[in-house]
Amino acid sequence: MTDHLLRFRELTRTIADLERTQWLLNWDRQVMMPPAGAEQRSQELATLAAAVHGRACSAELGELLERLEASPGAQDLGQRADLRETRRRYDRAVKVPEQLVADHARICALAQPAWEEARARDAFDHFLPHLEQVIKVTREVADALGGDDPYDALLEDYEPGMTRADLDPLLTELERRLVPLLARIRDGGPQPDDQCLTRKMPVETQETFALAMAGDMGFDLTAGRLDRSAHPFTSGHVGDVRITGRFAEDRLATGLFAVIHETGHALYQQGLDPKRYRDPAGTYCSLGVHESQSRLWENMIARSPAFWTFYLPRLKRAFPGIMDDVSQDCFVAALNRVEPTMIRVEADEVTYNLHIVLRYRIEKSLLYGDLAPADLPTAWNEGMERLLGVTPRSHREGCLQDVHWAAGLIGYFPTYTLGNLLAAQLMLAILDDLPDLDDMLARGDLLPLRKWLGRKIHRHGKLHLAPALIQQATGKPLSTEPFLEYLEAKYLGQ
Amino acid sequence: MTDHLLRFRELTRTIADLERTQWLLNWDRQVMMPPAGAEQRSQELATLAAAVHGRACSAELGELLERLEASPGAQDLGQRADLRETRRRYDRAVKVPEQLVADHARICALAQPAWEEARARDAFDHFLPHLEQVIKVTREVADALGGDDPYDALLEDYEPGMTRADLDPLLTELERRLVPLLARIRDGGPQPDDQCLTRKMPVETQETFALAMAGDMGFDLTAGRLDRSAHPFTSGHVGDVRITGRFAEDRLATGLFAVIHETGHALYQQGLDPKRYRDPAGTYCSLGVHESQSRLWENMIARSPAFWTFYLPRLKRAFPGIMDDVSQDCFVAALNRVEPTMIRVEADEVTYNLHIVLRYRIEKSLLYGDLAPADLPTAWNEGMERLLGVTPRSHREGCLQDVHWAAGLIGYFPTYTLGNLLAAQLMLAILDDLPDLDDMLARGDLLPLRKWLGRKIHRHGKLHLAPALIQQATGKPLSTEPFLEYLEAKYLGQ
Repeated sequence: MTDHLLRFRELTRTIADLERTQWLLNWDRQVMMPPAGAEQRSQELATLAAAVHGRACSAELGELLERLEASPGAQDLGQRADLRETRRRYDRAVKVPEQLVADHARICALAQPAWEEARARDAFDHFLPHLEQVIKVTREVADALGGDDPYDALLEDYEPGMTRADLDPLLTELERRLVPLLARIRDGGPQPDDQCLTRKMPVETQETFALAMAGDMGFDLTAGRLDRSAHPFTSGHVGDVRITGRFAEDRLATGLFAVIHETGHALYQQGLDPKRYRDPAGTYCSLGVHESQSRLWENMIARSPAFWTFYLPRLKRAFPGIMDDVSQDCFVAALNRVEPTMIRVEADEVTYNLHIVLRYRIEKSLLYGDLAPADLPTAWNEGMERLLGVTPRSHREGCLQDVHWAAGLIGYFPTYTLGNLLAAQLMLAILDDLPDLDDMLARGDLLPLRKWLGRKIHRHGKLHLAPALIQQATGKPLSTEPFLEYLEAKYLGQ
Repeated sequence: MTDHLLRFRELTRTIADLERTQWLLNWDRQVMMPPAGAEQRSQELATLAAAVHGRACSAELGELLERLEASPGAQDLGQRADLRETRRRYDRAVKVPEQLVADHARICALAQPAWEEARARDAFDHFLPHLEQVIKVTREVADALGGDDPYDALLEDYEPGMTRADLDPLLTELERRLVPLLARIRDGGPQPDDQCLTRKMPVETQETFALAMAGDMGFDLTAGRLDRSAHPFTSGHVGDVRITGRFAEDRLATGLFAVIHETGHALYQQGLDPKRYRDPAGTYCSLGVHESQSRLWENMIARSPAFWTFYLPRLKRAFPGIMDDVSQDCFVAALNRVEPTMIRVEADEVTYNLHIVLRYRIEKSLLYGDLAPADLPTAWNEGMERLLGVTPRSHREGCLQDVHWAAGLIGYFPTYTLGNLLAAQLMLAILDDLPDLDDMLARGDLLPLRKWLGRKIHRHGKLHLAPALIQQATGKPLSTEPFLEYLEAKYLGQ
């Protein structure tokens, strides 16, 4: 390896270490930190953000990039991908002043506890000044990044190479097909009873059961943890991957499916190539690809009858006397009940993406200045009524339900929909390779699926950008068809 | 404020943020991190150490120091102290190459889990190669720092301004007086029975009781946490101060007193001036002063009869039926039993400093190369026999009992003794100001003591170095007399 390449490795790995440190500080903030620590933590995060940024656009890194790009001869696939990722990042980072990076980090770190309190008290006004600051500083970042469209500038962080021009038709098509699909499903008669999912079950047992499922899926607890937080999430990579859940006595499905969802993310993070995890292309491919992993496990697998052939008897034993009368058909039907509701993370597969359509439009309007933050609740409630026919009775079940905007994550929501689409598309490829998948699930043998995902997705990290990875794994570019066909087959029997 | 001073503040506060981040990563490593995370955490810590070091000896900081030192006119006490601390640190940091700093951090981060495993398996050989690396890299750091004596070079980090020449006579005097004192106590007849401290008590209740005591002492749980770890410690400051304990069913005193000890540290960290906590002189004064806070609460207060006038009835209620027959006299006598034992952190007040004498001599020999790491167990056991008349039966209760050397903390142990001496000296000053302290303790009113410590010690941070702070708080320079007189009065009734 040349001296330049060695120094390039050293610099980029240092950046990775600092970013992993940011992840940990954020995890700790949400899971462990005492309330009075918020102010100092926001300063620490701002300092780290500035330190990462300073390195990511340092003159030395710029010179190394030019030298290494000029002599690509001896580079292998991984090195080329590392250069590509570093170049993209460098070109972006040099455009954003360090002070703006630190301001963004600090404002977002303070907005999150404010959001938590506002949500707990159902007090939008308490969050509003923070939201205004977040939108303002995010717009400043987008303007600094430049380009034709401020939303595209932000999206590039979450879904590299994807633009509004790609997203708009996908989401328009989903709205066009999902609204009538929802109407047809509802016209088809009453939805299944889900009373069996609201019986009181001790949260400790729920957590133990969920953790055992995560272990069966392949989550390695010597390299991970499960904790609780207000908003479930996954953090860390390779040897230290942490998921969080939230549990309530009368919300069995909410608790279990949050853990299954986060475990889908966690398997990706634990499955990254351990030889390349500190390198620029050694991380996950994109947020859409990440979400495909969680949604595939959560919806395609854990809402299937075969999965519960194995797990329902175990669930009954874990909660003796509580679920004895529940048949597998009833249980699976309850898990797949379609009903427009207020909360995105609890939405069924049919309505979920309509929640995203709403957020996607609102965050664009906020960013473009077409919608004032103070008018968010009104816009939210009108959108819910139009898309789903329901109106939130509180901010908590309305515009305060998600942490994303408080965390400065604007441009992030559409990646959830991309994940849903990709999960359905991956499932077709999986069934080609594992035609007896249902038999495996019914035996509780989840390993072949995990291995398939590891081989086709996890191991590659960011060697290829998402479009190439999707083409390679599924043989086709991303489209809405597999997902819509999956829903139509499942809910209309077509 | 001048531009130079503003920039100086900004730079030094950035360093503080990165150091607090190191604290958190270390806390997490010992309390939360899954085992497979050790390797990547060691890299993150190495990167942070290098980032701190790079800033602490940056050319820009050096120039700012020179400019600000050249125009001291308008500076207040805090600014002068910030300059003094930054200068000392800068002059040290420029001597140590960044690579050596990163190596030191990485080697120590890896040595700690190895020590934990070696201790659990009682396998010194498993730790030996790590110890060799730690000693080697620490010696390299000491040599880079230069000066007359490598031990002095390290000590300066923990007890600024203190040298071997100060320590040697203190520790020699302690050995000279403590060995015969121990003999006289033992000649005085059998030690009190401590059977009441080995009764089985549920660890959850122990933890709850200990946490309530910590709250009574003034530990603010909205700005702190209590967790468990192999080796109890305190981390964090101001709005986020974390203590850890360890509990065993049949070791009530071990569990309670570890929490009281750490709470003594935690009150110091929570009591720092919230306006200056990111500034160079806004942190604690020295480790010796820190230890005086923990030892004062642990020994002078929580082993006193008055303290248990209040707490013993509460303890009996917390553990119904277990302690009913235990009188206050018997309980307090058991807590003050003097007996040479193997484990430093469980040693009584008389023998404790002999444990430090042993470690102080051994770590000097290791550093000077007079003792090979492989010969540590032999030297340890011989020293224990000579000083305390007992010989460890295992490495676990011998040279593997403390984390310090695994953590690269060489020059740290003597600060424990300094803390013991200072605690006794502070106690004389406290009794001058609060002559009815015993009445307060008997009522459970711990607030006046906490306030005294806050006013005399905590608030000042590092405005003054330890000798000046001690003179200011007690009216005298540090000496062994108050401590030895306290022991003689307590154990010989003189």
